[in-house]
Amino acid sequence: MSTDPSKYVFNHTMIRVKDPKVSIKFYVDVLGMKLITKSEMEAGKFTLYFLAYVDKVPESEEEKRKLCFSMPGVLELTHNWGTENDADFAYANGNKEPGRGFGHIAVLVDDIQKACERFEQLSVKFIKRLQDGSMKHIAFIADPDDYWVEIIENPSIVGRAPI
Amino acid sequence: MSTDPSKYVFNHTMIRVKDPKVSIKFYVDVLGMKLITKSEMEAGKFTLYFLAYVDKVPESEEEKRKLCFSMPGVLELTHNWGTENDADFAYANGNKEPGRGFGHIAVLVDDIQKACERFEQLSVKFIKRLQDGSMKHIAFIADPDDYWVEIIENPSIVGRAPI
Repeated sequence: MSTDPSKYVFNHTMIRVKDPKVSIKFYVDVLGMKLITKSEMEAGKFTLYFLAYVDKVPESEEEKRKLCFSMPGVLELTHNWGTENDADFAYANGNKEPGRGFGHIAVLVDDIQKACERFEQLSVKFIKRLQDGSMKHIAFIADPDDYWVEIIENPSIVGRAPI
Repeated sequence: MSTDPSKYVFNHTMIRVKDPKVSIKFYVDVLGMKLITKSEMEAGKFTLYFLAYVDKVPESEEEKRKLCFSMPGVLELTHNWGTENDADFAYANGNKEPGRGFGHIAVLVDDIQKACERFEQLSVKFIKRLQDGSMKHIAFIADPDDYWVEIIENPSIVGRAPI
């Protein structure tokens, strides 16, 4: 029983996505993550995609997997094959009934004004722009499945707390 | 527009919880996270709790917030006041209809056999024990709101990839 829970690592968050091509493009091209590796599960007819902010994706599959399962801040996207071909198919984003529970993931950016201007130019859907509501220092955008992504300026750069 | 998305940080994942006392006890006592800070939002009648794996919680509120909003691997629990007093109230965990979408969070442990034995002794609810199904190297437990938490052995310690 000599396991030390204080040494555990919050490794990843998993969300299901309808179309991995669209989602990966969003998380890589818009949000700047890197696709590290994937696992195709033939028996269950699903594929798992692992993304994270890393400077460099290792070359060997072994190193990719070691990295994916040792660092915090990994995003796992699960694709159940075929959902992308069903026009009516949609996952719940967790923020409305039925299905309220999960809220969002949050990404720290270097300059929130410039980051939001860039999202606008990339035609990203906004849930809350900086100027909306009372909290002028955060924004919410939506990923392709309408999961919310909170955008916060990194206080380690600007030296202030955002909330 | 000189914002560099590759430098962004996947900071936190937010889930709503029915009773913060019960949830914080689970994430702190069972899973070993530390409660870093909280934000009471009087106007919206909700409180946000920020937890993470850190060696030490800073003393000043400013340092706590800087830490919370600069590191990856933070868990944000949102408590809408009063839900804990409604016996029938429950959030969707994302893994069944209606409300399927969000899947789970995952925690890396130092020794998965010992970690699971400890969870058993603490009467934690298992979704999948190590011996269940075909994937003998991972387990799933449930948090107090029935959100799934995947348990994986940290390959940076044992030197192997878990999937």
